[in-house]
Amino acid sequence: MNYLETINTPSDIKNMSVPELNTLAKEIRTAILNRVSQTGGHVGPNLGAVEIIIALHYVFNSPTDKFIFDVSHQSYAHKILTGRKYGFLNKEYFNQISGYTNPQESEHDLFMVGHTSTSISLACGVAKARDFAKRNENVIALIGDGSLGGGEALEGLNFASELNSNLIIIINDNEMSIAENHGGLYKNLRLLRETKGTAQNNMFKAWGLDYQYISDGHNIETLIQTFKQIKNINNPIVLHIHTTKGKGFSFAEKNKEYWHYQMPFNLQTGESTFQYSTGENYNTLTVNYLTQKVKQNKNIVVLTAGTPGALGFSPEKRLEMGKNLIDVGIMEEHAVAMCSGLAKNGTKPIFWVLSPFVQRTYDQLSHDLALNNNPAVILVSWNGIMGNDATHLGTFDISMMSNIPNLICLAPTSKEEYFAMLEWAITCQSHPVVIRVPSMVFSSSAPVDIDYDNLNQFQTIQTGNTIAICALGSFLPLGYQVLEKLRKRQINATLINPRFYSGIDTHLLNNLKENHKLIVTLEDGELDGGFGEKISRFYGSSNMKVLNFGAKKEFTDRIPLEKLYEKYHLTPDLIVQDIFTTLKE
Amino acid sequence: MNYLETINTPSDIKNMSVPELNTLAKEIRTAILNRVSQTGGHVGPNLGAVEIIIALHYVFNSPTDKFIFDVSHQSYAHKILTGRKYGFLNKEYFNQISGYTNPQESEHDLFMVGHTSTSISLACGVAKARDFAKRNENVIALIGDGSLGGGEALEGLNFASELNSNLIIIINDNEMSIAENHGGLYKNLRLLRETKGTAQNNMFKAWGLDYQYISDGHNIETLIQTFKQIKNINNPIVLHIHTTKGKGFSFAEKNKEYWHYQMPFNLQTGESTFQYSTGENYNTLTVNYLTQKVKQNKNIVVLTAGTPGALGFSPEKRLEMGKNLIDVGIMEEHAVAMCSGLAKNGTKPIFWVLSPFVQRTYDQLSHDLALNNNPAVILVSWNGIMGNDATHLGTFDISMMSNIPNLICLAPTSKEEYFAMLEWAITCQSHPVVIRVPSMVFSSSAPVDIDYDNLNQFQTIQTGNTIAICALGSFLPLGYQVLEKLRKRQINATLINPRFYSGIDTHLLNNLKENHKLIVTLEDGELDGGFGEKISRFYGSSNMKVLNFGAKKEFTDRIPLEKLYEKYHLTPDLIVQDIFTTLKE
Repeated sequence: MNYLETINTPSDIKNMSVPELNTLAKEIRTAILNRVSQTGGHVGPNLGAVEIIIALHYVFNSPTDKFIFDVSHQSYAHKILTGRKYGFLNKEYFNQISGYTNPQESEHDLFMVGHTSTSISLACGVAKARDFAKRNENVIALIGDGSLGGGEALEGLNFASELNSNLIIIINDNEMSIAENHGGLYKNLRLLRETKGTAQNNMFKAWGLDYQYISDGHNIETLIQTFKQIKNINNPIVLHIHTTKGKGFSFAEKNKEYWHYQMPFNLQTGESTFQYSTGENYNTLTVNYLTQKVKQNKNIVVLTAGTPGALGFSPEKRLEMGKNLIDVGIMEEHAVAMCSGLAKNGTKPIFWVLSPFVQRTYDQLSHDLALNNNPAVILVSWNGIMGNDATHLGTFDISMMSNIPNLICLAPTSKEEYFAMLEWAITCQSHPVVIRVPSMVFSSSAPVDIDYDNLNQFQTIQTGNTIAICALGSFLPLGYQVLEKLRKRQINATLINPRFYSGIDTHLLNNLKENHKLIVTLEDGELDGGFGEKISRFYGSSNMKVLNFGAKKEFTDRIPLEKLYEKYHLTPDLIVQDIFTTLKE
Repeated sequence: MNYLETINTPSDIKNMSVPELNTLAKEIRTAILNRVSQTGGHVGPNLGAVEIIIALHYVFNSPTDKFIFDVSHQSYAHKILTGRKYGFLNKEYFNQISGYTNPQESEHDLFMVGHTSTSISLACGVAKARDFAKRNENVIALIGDGSLGGGEALEGLNFASELNSNLIIIINDNEMSIAENHGGLYKNLRLLRETKGTAQNNMFKAWGLDYQYISDGHNIETLIQTFKQIKNINNPIVLHIHTTKGKGFSFAEKNKEYWHYQMPFNLQTGESTFQYSTGENYNTLTVNYLTQKVKQNKNIVVLTAGTPGALGFSPEKRLEMGKNLIDVGIMEEHAVAMCSGLAKNGTKPIFWVLSPFVQRTYDQLSHDLALNNNPAVILVSWNGIMGNDATHLGTFDISMMSNIPNLICLAPTSKEEYFAMLEWAITCQSHPVVIRVPSMVFSSSAPVDIDYDNLNQFQTIQTGNTIAICALGSFLPLGYQVLEKLRKRQINATLINPRFYSGIDTHLLNNLKENHKLIVTLEDGELDGGFGEKISRFYGSSNMKVLNFGAKKEFTDRIPLEKLYEKYHLTPDLIVQDIFTTLKE
């Protein structure tokens, strides 16, 4: 670390020679690998962008010139060069630096970003604001080829052509999305790579954008020359740079998808050092179920929007699924609309998506799918209150989805119930059905209904009195714990598994009025607009008291889950305490 | 009407000659104009697509072959040819036929659609389902050039290239969006028109799509020939057809934007016969305010996503706004992300959008804007419970927006309060601010706060006891009516203007417990996930009773507003009746 030690701000690299910058690139790779091998993180995309970022900071003057990173998966070298190297070199500081750009960390970061396809539109705004202020800084968006297919990125690219001022859009083309790329635009990127940017047919030029191609995105000298040449350019330009995903780490160069994101690993062997929980997980269970299911029923098609690996579809499992698995690329909107078309014309689509990304499809869920009541199935994984980064929370999907008419939303509480619901959802012909897949697998020998045609019918697990606990989905175990605590205090409470969160069981809730004073709702998501509020509204005109437990409406950033549970009173003791306080009032 | 009288299904045109079809086209135009001149409707786009639709039904066999209409603005001729001519010829039946495709009207309509940019993705699903079923019908998406810029359409186009089977994408290029087009892709469409489709640089071919150009989209013979030639094609193809928006109605051919959609008019003179309300309206007030405001403060920029006219920006007012008005085209996602960029770099963006379309931006509102707390302003018009078509409801925005953290949502109750809120929102530097613009203008001499820094502070308009009415935004007049009714029954109720709907005033609500038994909330939107539920949750653990009034979670389709109000108990009498029922319980 001869050079990195001396670098605290981008200006520290401006007098370095090209050979020195090349050595610096190696040191930065070492720093990146030092961190990700211990904390996990985005390996491949960050390693591939090191030279681009060094050259950017060499030629441009951040933070006067504005760098906007798409999805932040390529931002580590930028963080290292902008005073945050300690977050990569020193274990003690790993937690202080997030895996995403974050204005609270540094003035060199403009936005907190963890979703793809946002950089060009954000940059258009930053550039336009510069023009209004009659300043002349450079505005640079750095976007990967995989993110370019998202509708927001394409809208941004379309609009960019209307700017008559400086905007530099760097496409870091490593020939990969998270997994392989999908869609016609990648045919054009390939043609442009193969012709070194000279092909007549060029989508960027077709849209009126200036264009330049760099075939070796790891050649710092070329990068610097080109950046110098286009610095202060007075029109929007696309700089198409070819790089190698995972550059400089042989394992990552070989298996690009596996190394897109990895949990901690051994630097020498590449082997994972992460202690995966040994028990069952819903990804594997679901993938196994679906691979079997499509063998019996060729009419089922599973869709993913760029994240087959994160869902457990290994390359082998993808082969097994064959044409019954469609990865549309990072185009969630297209996935939902396509589901509506598939269902309308007689196929049974299952769109499997993570909670933070399903929120990219509100209008497609509402207008394209639910308004038409086409019977698609949507599986929402990676949901619930989480201790991770603010850009990848799973707190909001209940509120976002359950208030859309016609969407039937189901929250299973056990493995057995999950598969019963999924079987039913596949046969359902009357509505689109959402299933919120829990993070933890519980198995239960309790009888499970196979028919959910009777919408909004809650299930009473234990009949008691005075207090009823209505514990949704993954919070049923918490419900049991509260039940047990109450039993110790001589209260024989009722426990309810609502199963549905898009509506309420008015019959059951009315019956509870007879010998209950208080209903407690537990949900693994934000309270505002959530499931519990529907119960509160129902009982508003009665004497029944209601206590809703769930998350506060807020973006939380890397706050440990236990702390969040404590803050939200989502522990058995705090819940029981609140129950007794309420009963005394 | 020699021909139209004899046509009841598409098969009735299959033996007609080209001259006969040309006469039929005239008759269809007469029928369209007969309807829209009396009911209002989409004039220009429908008139421009008559020949395309005749030729489609001549060559293809609907409903076996599947026609998918983008946004439905071009579907009238299709409706006329598929057994629904009475809805255009006979006043009695106008109401039975909606202005949008609707599977409940006809098996020839696949989807209920009123938002743009959906057709290609829907068609990809329909085509893929056909392939799964090993059938071979043609799947045809008809999309206007204006709709093509939306991210969902571009995602669909990108994916379409991956289909190895029949998909016919017809781009009806009339050189217009609702207003003028914006963005780089329109540069390519122009080049393709100018070169009659022969330009080397072709965005569709760049994306691996087959492509053909038709320069005269009103020549039925050419259309039929081309359609016959590509019928049963085994790969996706883009058919780029040049048409004249408003074709055959001279007024509409001349002023294309004005005639995109019109209220009833005189067929001979083109003059509007619609009785616009003579009072003030928020569009005019807001446009006047903004044109003045940007003269004082050059740092304010107003954004619209393709609907400047619908908001009251006449071509003259647009000139007056100059560069301080940006129409991004129908790209709502880009608009919101761009706002975040503008606000971050020191400009004050105001995105003005209609409620049904702001729902296209959930993720941009949440991740791009609110997570970053960049201080943009969003004005949401065309909101509230409505008697119109199911695709253009304003019922859902409270629930969709108010549960996103960091968004400050304000509901003004009078003209004076609206402009005070807007002034404050423009100066606010800490948060993005949403203002829900009411439909009806009320003026009030009551003092209005100019400072809303104290978030979630409700305003007590009248202090009473026993019952408190919390009437949000446009429902304040309803609150006054309830107050008056209660007064007549010797109850001196409290009336509250909450002003904020993204949070609650816990201090004020706690104080109400002293001498109130029941809180009534009134909101002009769906109850599920809405404002009232936040109040119900707050009081859940107390003895306070709460009654929430608002819309049911449902898509309503052309149900008169009075009927909806009756159904939802949103009349003073029904509210008072419910109040007394609750008090007696």
